[in-house]
Amino acid sequence: MIVSGEEIGQFEKRYRANLINSILGYKPANLIGTKSVEGINNLAIFTSTVHLGANPPLIGMVSRPDSVPRHTLTNIRNTSHYTINHLHKEIYKAGHQTSAKYSATVSEFTQTDLTPVSINGFPAPFVDQSEVKMGLELVEIIPIKQNGTYFIIGEIKLIEIDHSLLLEDGSLDYSLLTTVTATGLDTYHEARFIDKLPYARPQSTK
Amino acid sequence: MIVSGEEIGQFEKRYRANLINSILGYKPANLIGTKSVEGINNLAIFTSTVHLGANPPLIGMVSRPDSVPRHTLTNIRNTSHYTINHLHKEIYKAGHQTSAKYSATVSEFTQTDLTPVSINGFPAPFVDQSEVKMGLELVEIIPIKQNGTYFIIGEIKLIEIDHSLLLEDGSLDYSLLTTVTATGLDTYHEARFIDKLPYARPQSTK
Repeated sequence: MIVSGEEIGQFEKRYRANLINSILGYKPANLIGTKSVEGINNLAIFTSTVHLGANPPLIGMVSRPDSVPRHTLTNIRNTSHYTINHLHKEIYKAGHQTSAKYSATVSEFTQTDLTPVSINGFPAPFVDQSEVKMGLELVEIIPIKQNGTYFIIGEIKLIEIDHSLLLEDGSLDYSLLTTVTATGLDTYHEARFIDKLPYARPQSTK
Repeated sequence: MIVSGEEIGQFEKRYRANLINSILGYKPANLIGTKSVEGINNLAIFTSTVHLGANPPLIGMVSRPDSVPRHTLTNIRNTSHYTINHLHKEIYKAGHQTSAKYSATVSEFTQTDLTPVSINGFPAPFVDQSEVKMGLELVEIIPIKQNGTYFIIGEIKLIEIDHSLLLEDGSLDYSLLTTVTATGLDTYHEARFIDKLPYARPQSTK
């Protein structure tokens, strides 16, 4: 079937959110760790991180509008630091639970089995159970004027990962990780390796 | 092991690119269809699309710097339209091949088994073999000044999908799709459903 932009606009709100949130494909599932100025460790699941560049190592991430309290966005604005941690098969339920609207005085870490861990004095909490941890420093927050969201740009300042999880070429070896991937707002999947292809050069493959 | 920002900066260029490109987790694998002002159909694989909002349905996407020719970016600038098509298991090799540096006068469609298809006169080509096709109109191109990349924002104006691939709540039924997911610059995976969780409400799960 063909759906027009007008028809999308007329869909029931929740139906449209599920459709558009799930339409691009599989998304990275990350836990974002921050600390409030009051010292409360916050943790929130995000599926909107995106690679911006390797040198310097820049990562983008979308925050929803702050017409309601957004603890992650507020904490990043106030402290300029946050962590990105992989969501794994063993912890996906706890990770999903961090999307509940807890008050700012409650740490998601105390409400789930996830454990905050400090690394080298980095000013935001990492998730101990996560096999891939990154510490980022805020670079810029770009307001998206069309819908009130924010595109948060950060630079990776620290990576914690077991060396055995890296391939010789620098890539993460996903065959050894139990990292999950998300679709839509509520669905989790595991992945299985198909192929690693050589650098593509112009030639017909027909 | 713990890697510092300084150490990341000292890694060999290709090693660093593989590491940072693969560090966030599983990424959506999409084929972006555009048409040049000369009428050449262009197709390029992107793994940087991100959901920006459902109402209006806005999608973000990262383009690398245009210090060298970027046909997709140029065509979107010139025509304000592009398509996003899912990459499936049957076509991932052809999709990867579109990353080769063909000249602007050569259509990736003529160099692979992928077939361009026109839908309702939309001014950019869709991929016939893709089970999920979207047509977008450009909203804004935001230059990322830190590294010369561009964040391209578009609004979904058309969706082509078989109705049987949608769940009752509007989500795509990924158990029926052979959509692949990518890690890094060259690796493809298939995914398998684990769980669809209820909307999370504040309560301890400890």
